[in-house]
Amino acid sequence: MKFCSDCGVTLVRRVPAGDNRERDCCDACGVIHYQNPKVVVGTVPTHDGRILLCRRAIEPRYGYWTLPAGFMENGETVAEGALRETREEAGIEVELGAVFSMLSVPHVDQVHLFYLARMRSPQVAPGEETLEARLFEEAEIPWEQIAFRTVEKTLRWWFEDRARQRFDMHTDDIHFGRPKKS
Amino acid sequence: MKFCSDCGVTLVRRVPAGDNRERDCCDACGVIHYQNPKVVVGTVPTHDGRILLCRRAIEPRYGYWTLPAGFMENGETVAEGALRETREEAGIEVELGAVFSMLSVPHVDQVHLFYLARMRSPQVAPGEETLEARLFEEAEIPWEQIAFRTVEKTLRWWFEDRARQRFDMHTDDIHFGRPKKS
Repeated sequence: MKFCSDCGVTLVRRVPAGDNRERDCCDACGVIHYQNPKVVVGTVPTHDGRILLCRRAIEPRYGYWTLPAGFMENGETVAEGALRETREEAGIEVELGAVFSMLSVPHVDQVHLFYLARMRSPQVAPGEETLEARLFEEAEIPWEQIAFRTVEKTLRWWFEDRARQRFDMHTDDIHFGRPKKS
Repeated sequence: MKFCSDCGVTLVRRVPAGDNRERDCCDACGVIHYQNPKVVVGTVPTHDGRILLCRRAIEPRYGYWTLPAGFMENGETVAEGALRETREEAGIEVELGAVFSMLSVPHVDQVHLFYLARMRSPQVAPGEETLEARLFEEAEIPWEQIAFRTVEKTLRWWFEDRARQRFDMHTDDIHFGRPKKS
């Protein structure tokens, strides 16, 4: 940030009184512009033991496969955001289950949350941000073409949990520079 | 937002191409200024069956009791944020357990997340944002003086779960205008 979004004056980067980290401060109108992590919300949509993946029609990771997910919006709940993204990207209605995974991605200031989700039908209707959407058996998952490590982890947990017939919530952190498992 | 924080020009509120909701758009430099919910992270610190609460030394809800919690910062994980807030507000080190509660508060664009946490000792050292911090037995909890509904819900879930001897993750939404349970 360079300019105050409230008054237009040039901002100063410093530690405000009573704080312990640098912020963008406006010495004209006094506003402190905090910046905080964003929440990415999505689902693991399943139907008869298969998982729905969407192939991205947008950057980053154009052409790679992902679970339906996107930035949570102001004014909605986590569950509403997950349902909205699932509808927008895959064109499907799902019945949400429990929160299944929560992954912090501190180098991009994000938290990713995925819900278990049961598809009401196997029909899909991909939105503008999706090249195609289809259901995958475990053996068909394109592991080398998964868009994000949070999605890969969530998929692996889902198949592990299914194998042991018990779905729990999983948490982990994804750090910069650690390569994707091959 | 009135002015572009990148170039200082007056912003226009409209729906960008390919989007479906109004954003603050800069027609000079082309940047779209998205605004998204913030994450509040905290803990339920316990010691020998008692819960630690902090009495707020800041607004909102000055003088009311709360669990240690605050805004997650860029560059940290959810767990790091919860530990940091617990340290800053109560001056204690805890051993984090599972994620215990997740509450969406859409009318203030927030998601609150609390971890189970075991205190390493009953000693506290309240920080500047805390008037006092102390351990409470269930019968001593000042239910009428709890600062936030997300904290009240989390406390009630904790005592319910302890009574049935099983701690699960809980989720709920807090909507505007619904009064606190008396």
